[in-house]
Amino acid sequence: MTEHNALLRGKRVLVTGAAGFIGSQLVRKLLDCGSQVSVLIRPGADPWRLQDVLAQLEIYAGDLGHLSFQEIQSKIFPPQIIYHLGATGVDSGTLPAEEIFKTNILGTWTLLQLAQHLKVERFIHCGSCFEYGSGNFISEDIFPTPVAEYGFSKVSAWMLARMFHQRYALPVVSLRPFTVYGPFEGRHRLIPQIILNGLDHVDIELTAGKQTRDFIFMDDLLDAFVRAAVTADIIGETFNISTGKSTSVEEIVLTILRLLESPVKALFGVRPYRPMEIWSLSGNPTKAKNKLHWETKTSLEEGLQKSISWFRENRKKYSAYY
Amino acid sequence: MTEHNALLRGKRVLVTGAAGFIGSQLVRKLLDCGSQVSVLIRPGADPWRLQDVLAQLEIYAGDLGHLSFQEIQSKIFPPQIIYHLGATGVDSGTLPAEEIFKTNILGTWTLLQLAQHLKVERFIHCGSCFEYGSGNFISEDIFPTPVAEYGFSKVSAWMLARMFHQRYALPVVSLRPFTVYGPFEGRHRLIPQIILNGLDHVDIELTAGKQTRDFIFMDDLLDAFVRAAVTADIIGETFNISTGKSTSVEEIVLTILRLLESPVKALFGVRPYRPMEIWSLSGNPTKAKNKLHWETKTSLEEGLQKSISWFRENRKKYSAYY
Repeated sequence: MTEHNALLRGKRVLVTGAAGFIGSQLVRKLLDCGSQVSVLIRPGADPWRLQDVLAQLEIYAGDLGHLSFQEIQSKIFPPQIIYHLGATGVDSGTLPAEEIFKTNILGTWTLLQLAQHLKVERFIHCGSCFEYGSGNFISEDIFPTPVAEYGFSKVSAWMLARMFHQRYALPVVSLRPFTVYGPFEGRHRLIPQIILNGLDHVDIELTAGKQTRDFIFMDDLLDAFVRAAVTADIIGETFNISTGKSTSVEEIVLTILRLLESPVKALFGVRPYRPMEIWSLSGNPTKAKNKLHWETKTSLEEGLQKSISWFRENRKKYSAYY
Repeated sequence: MTEHNALLRGKRVLVTGAAGFIGSQLVRKLLDCGSQVSVLIRPGADPWRLQDVLAQLEIYAGDLGHLSFQEIQSKIFPPQIIYHLGATGVDSGTLPAEEIFKTNILGTWTLLQLAQHLKVERFIHCGSCFEYGSGNFISEDIFPTPVAEYGFSKVSAWMLARMFHQRYALPVVSLRPFTVYGPFEGRHRLIPQIILNGLDHVDIELTAGKQTRDFIFMDDLLDAFVRAAVTADIIGETFNISTGKSTSVEEIVLTILRLLESPVKALFGVRPYRPMEIWSLSGNPTKAKNKLHWETKTSLEEGLQKSISWFRENRKKYSAYY
């Protein structure tokens, strides 16, 4: 265990959004670090990604968008550290904007009040690359220009976290992960789709695939989450969690199929681009390197290979989901 | 009537927040310009400031935070221009944040959808100096750092308006008025309090009064509202509506008492500052001058004199409110 992981041993940590793709892996990481982990899970959410560690967690059912901080406080054992990943709408264009705003904005405000009331040691706010809208090698100090309701709601949530830092000296650290991939990723998303089609020998219908993203492997993100909780002199700061590299969808798809040694055909150009396609989205990781002392350690090929191995090995176990 | 006022003649204009201090005066101004004015007024709001012009208006009862755009659309005669002033929370620290967020963020989103659906000629979004938090001679291109829920909600609303401009080419123009004063201002606010105490010969208990603001007279703001609707080449822009001058509360109070020739004492320092006092807040008006072709025409002394005259003449008529 690295030195900074050890700093989380015995800490009482609350994770929101713990049933999600990222949240569930953060929970596992924290358990590995020896933290006492409690989770806030929306009633009705399926915690399948946590099923083999549920017994090690304190679990609270609660919907961030519909609870007061006093109600949450009455349920939970006071945490020393809060990781706030609870959010909605990233994949769902059909969710009513009202629900997105309620969960992501009002819910964040509620949790910030709780954090301030409990005087937590650190509040790690999980933002999103979609706060930026689009662009290449974007730095944290530009003015965010989100292009849809989800990104907008995440900028608003980030502003609230910043306000609580400035107003109440709440020890907030904000991360903006770019396009995260890895084990447990939902099957509706690009990389799992390609891997599963490849394994199943089903040809894949795609757009022309020229849009680019900054793909970050889960393990690297988890390392950033740990550092965000324990690194000195970063209170109030916001960090891109990115590689700085742009990779096209086309390149990702071809790389996966090559690693799989799959005969499957990628039918580029069969599908139209989305009406509001984001053509490029990558982040400048310099600030994270200099102040968070974090950088990506996993090459794209290595990360994809690990993802493929995970899907090969775990697909049967999670057959209801893959 | 000036040339730009004439451009509003016969236009169908919808005003939200029409029962408020600023909204009600904008409605009167638009009627003077010959517009066909419809107003959206929250059920329960008291339209006392509009009582003598109500018969000239189309009035729709509706709460922005609790209606869909389809519901609003089904009620209203389609406007060509929308002035969106409806907002809550500027004076009410006790209002639940949920209501502030709902009205100011979700309500703005609803109205932007309506505007986009109706393909309005212009959507004038009324922001606030509180988006900035604090500072002197602030320009529009700085990154807003609001210090409380109201200012935060207004930045969020402004971001939504900007997003609709960028995404749907909605012809949005945003204004950020600074500290507006003039006829019909609510009695709980500084300038009316001083005038009324002065007229009533009641000594005034105040803070030390060293905090400064950028005071803008209502007539000048109304001129900016008209220009925002009719000026070419300003779509997508945001303008401070400010004088650029900082005036302390102390100076305002002493000036009013001098103009009133009142024997009343201003007891500076008797009251403590608010815990979250904003020490300075003024805006750089250069962009508004260059692109909106607007500048303040009313000196502070002239504006205060006009306010005093209005209170002297109208106090009896509105005795339930003053």
